[in-house]
Amino acid sequence: MTFSDRLSASAAMVEAALEELLDSTVHVGETARPPRLMAAMRHAVLGGGKRLRPFLVIETARLLGREGPGVVKAACALELVHCYSLVHDDLPAMDDDDLRRGRPTVHKAFDEATAILAGDALLTLAFEVAAAPAPGVVAAAQLELVRGLARAAGLGGMVGGQSLDLAAEGRYGDTPPDEAGIRVLQAMKTGALLAFSVEAGAILGQAAPETRRALVSYGRALGAAFQIADDLLDREADTAALGKRAAKDADKGKATLVDALGLADARAMRDKAAAEAIAALALLGAEADGLREAARFTAERRS
Amino acid sequence: MTFSDRLSASAAMVEAALEELLDSTVHVGETARPPRLMAAMRHAVLGGGKRLRPFLVIETARLLGREGPGVVKAACALELVHCYSLVHDDLPAMDDDDLRRGRPTVHKAFDEATAILAGDALLTLAFEVAAAPAPGVVAAAQLELVRGLARAAGLGGMVGGQSLDLAAEGRYGDTPPDEAGIRVLQAMKTGALLAFSVEAGAILGQAAPETRRALVSYGRALGAAFQIADDLLDREADTAALGKRAAKDADKGKATLVDALGLADARAMRDKAAAEAIAALALLGAEADGLREAARFTAERRS
Repeated sequence: MTFSDRLSASAAMVEAALEELLDSTVHVGETARPPRLMAAMRHAVLGGGKRLRPFLVIETARLLGREGPGVVKAACALELVHCYSLVHDDLPAMDDDDLRRGRPTVHKAFDEATAILAGDALLTLAFEVAAAPAPGVVAAAQLELVRGLARAAGLGGMVGGQSLDLAAEGRYGDTPPDEAGIRVLQAMKTGALLAFSVEAGAILGQAAPETRRALVSYGRALGAAFQIADDLLDREADTAALGKRAAKDADKGKATLVDALGLADARAMRDKAAAEAIAALALLGAEADGLREAARFTAERRS
Repeated sequence: MTFSDRLSASAAMVEAALEELLDSTVHVGETARPPRLMAAMRHAVLGGGKRLRPFLVIETARLLGREGPGVVKAACALELVHCYSLVHDDLPAMDDDDLRRGRPTVHKAFDEATAILAGDALLTLAFEVAAAPAPGVVAAAQLELVRGLARAAGLGGMVGGQSLDLAAEGRYGDTPPDEAGIRVLQAMKTGALLAFSVEAGAILGQAAPETRRALVSYGRALGAAFQIADDLLDREADTAALGKRAAKDADKGKATLVDALGLADARAMRDKAAAEAIAALALLGAEADGLREAARFTAERRS
């Protein structure tokens, strides 16, 4: 089975688990199900995506000998956070995008208020899922998972990175960031949740401290490779292949390493980051080959 | 000390704890502090509010013999969820309000993108705080707290209620809800988090099942009394006293029990709900007098 086949198989399994989660969410006491909101949540979550973050959670836990529904739930929690962030980033006041995964964005398919609420509900659901009873996962580890997810997603991670990204466009009068500044904002905006995907697997698999440090280093380098690859794809690919609008970074004055370094140096940095990710796994054996392939895939992907 | 004095003292203590939380939030790895986002979060959280939800958490835990920093942290987590919901509800695409607690709303003081992100960051921070190490709180109880907070805040609670509230305005072509429908949407939008404030105190105080059921009944009735009182205030008070625009419900075609029942019956229902809240505490002694006074205060408040 090629890596791409394994990623697809994992994505199909995660898709089914997400669908079940969205259907089965139990409601408190005397409540009703808001149909428009639920449809928007399904639109945001289901129907595609590589599901790279869930793959990293599941693959890392697996190499540490841990599998099962508790791991899949944690993987879904991370994906729900990722999906909410896409819905809010696409809003007119933010990146103002009409197309995502080849379909209309949530505020286009529904309306702006529903898109804001669907994002809010997905973020909240992520924490409900992360804290739900998980057979075989000790409570202390689960709390660590919740806290780590919140830190990766919040002010010091994804949300903070998005705020810096908007500022880097110049909309608030800030001077554009230099290369180091771009790296920091990308490490927050994209890197933090990708790195935490790997760390979540390490928490669930109760990795020894040295192994956990190695896995976190891998996750950080993978996150960097992923973001540079994304910026390169935005410049090189066309809209049909991406399923979202191409060349939009330049149109919006987004700060990317491709601008700061040029195409050739950006490609070299992407490949260097992927190599660093693989090097970080030196103390692990063949059981970590899935993660090594994920690093190569991340650097080489074409969509 | 009157109840109003006690509520003010509690609010001052909670305000200080929230300020410390917003200042001390630790950032992961290689990150920066986004100044505009942090300023918006402070604007949204600090500088006022009755802090009724934190009071209910702290007072309920106290009557069960539990006090200390773990309780205050949980109380702050609930207040952060409340504050985020105000920021998002005020957005132009939602209720489009310019004034909150006598000051410009976050999207007015900053901008729309920053308001969306500040709400996202506050919601995320709430879960970080709820899952943070809390001396004297067992991990299983803390997980229950995180899960309960997510359920009260999410699709089956606050976010779902806001979605139903927007639909009740008729913006999606739905027929207006009847009295039962209004009660359900209000129980979700406002009631769920208020009721969970009391339940959170019960979880932290490790209440016996019978006591916990009584406290949850109290919380639900209190939530109902609170929302009807709010609707009545919107109709009866003026903007200066409220610190937010008065009579806005009617302007926006919001569905309220005041419209469904008329002023006199709405007042009677508010007082009945407050009486039910007090009656639910029958098995508790004088240690629950603070909650009883909170129910009376909720029905009688003038702002």
